[in-house]
Amino acid sequence: MRRKEFEVTESELCESFLKEKNDGVLTFAGADGWPKAVPLNYVFHGGAIYFHGSKQGEKMAGLAANPRAEFVVYQAHAFIPSYFSDPYLACPATVFFRSVRARGNVEQVTDAAEKASALQALMTVMQPEGRHAPIDAADAKYSASLKGVAVLRLDPIDIAGKFKFGQNLSDKRRDQVVGGLSERGLPEDEDAIKRIRDSALKCPMRDN
Amino acid sequence: MRRKEFEVTESELCESFLKEKNDGVLTFAGADGWPKAVPLNYVFHGGAIYFHGSKQGEKMAGLAANPRAEFVVYQAHAFIPSYFSDPYLACPATVFFRSVRARGNVEQVTDAAEKASALQALMTVMQPEGRHAPIDAADAKYSASLKGVAVLRLDPIDIAGKFKFGQNLSDKRRDQVVGGLSERGLPEDEDAIKRIRDSALKCPMRDN
Repeated sequence: MRRKEFEVTESELCESFLKEKNDGVLTFAGADGWPKAVPLNYVFHGGAIYFHGSKQGEKMAGLAANPRAEFVVYQAHAFIPSYFSDPYLACPATVFFRSVRARGNVEQVTDAAEKASALQALMTVMQPEGRHAPIDAADAKYSASLKGVAVLRLDPIDIAGKFKFGQNLSDKRRDQVVGGLSERGLPEDEDAIKRIRDSALKCPMRDN
Repeated sequence: MRRKEFEVTESELCESFLKEKNDGVLTFAGADGWPKAVPLNYVFHGGAIYFHGSKQGEKMAGLAANPRAEFVVYQAHAFIPSYFSDPYLACPATVFFRSVRARGNVEQVTDAAEKASALQALMTVMQPEGRHAPIDAADAKYSASLKGVAVLRLDPIDIAGKFKFGQNLSDKRRDQVVGGLSERGLPEDEDAIKRIRDSALKCPMRDN
């Protein structure tokens, strides 16, 4: 029971990271047989990941032939230099980061209302101050644009996160890293120290 | 002739971006048939892209079965809100960015001297202040670590960049965007305005 509660919490960590960020890399098999890595803005909306783009091109061609895709979102939080914990070897140098990977089939959204809803959700993330007319399939000023843009939806089969903040370190090394970050005092170091202390672990796979 | 000079310059833009950054996403076909997207630190060194990691795991399994990969590096420079150029529609909202994609086969580096050279090059990027013993295959203190770590090399078949800074905008819209950025004055906006003016275009494919 305890463990199950923990898993829910971890899934929430992954989803909250997906809601916090707005760009990542979509990966799929290209029509030419090579894997493709395309950076994209996205929104995590109603449990799915939405992208938009041109109706032509390698994304559409590749995903039409094989809809399997993985999407990854990454944030580097702090570079940890080797000398925080070792005066000689370079080996302890590392980066503390968060990343979340979502795997699933991608399909093109054809329903105008779903397209509008996804694009409005993206605008709410990117431009929270508003200052535009709501994107609405019933607004004649938007209808041609909505018809012209491709909206893609990735339905996650599973979502997995990796949050690395020194969970593998001995207490002594962790203290040395926290001491080094305190002394360095870059703008993001205070947040990194907090995350080391909270020490979020790996999110488990979530099966839908 | 003019055009060829232009292409060389563009290739240099892509390579200089790869040298400037230190993380990206490596994409390949997983052993389970699904495309994989793995965020990694890297170094662009001697014309190749080097990564390191564990000798076991999905990267090694996937790439051993199929070495074809694509690696992408991305930087968002400025979010351009719709109202910089349109009081009603959300459509003009966009992100100005740079991205570079390198495609090629990935192989595992087994030569200890090449491993040491790649890892030292990575340290020079990540920790330019030094403060560690140089990574050297002849240094007994490094030999066990060098043996234990996997180093992967992607030899680019082609490198392509996309630098989006409003090259598709009319002069009027571009002036509105520059005006909006000047007024907003976020820390990165001054650099974005410079890039809009320099207006670097798409880097051409480079065939090796």
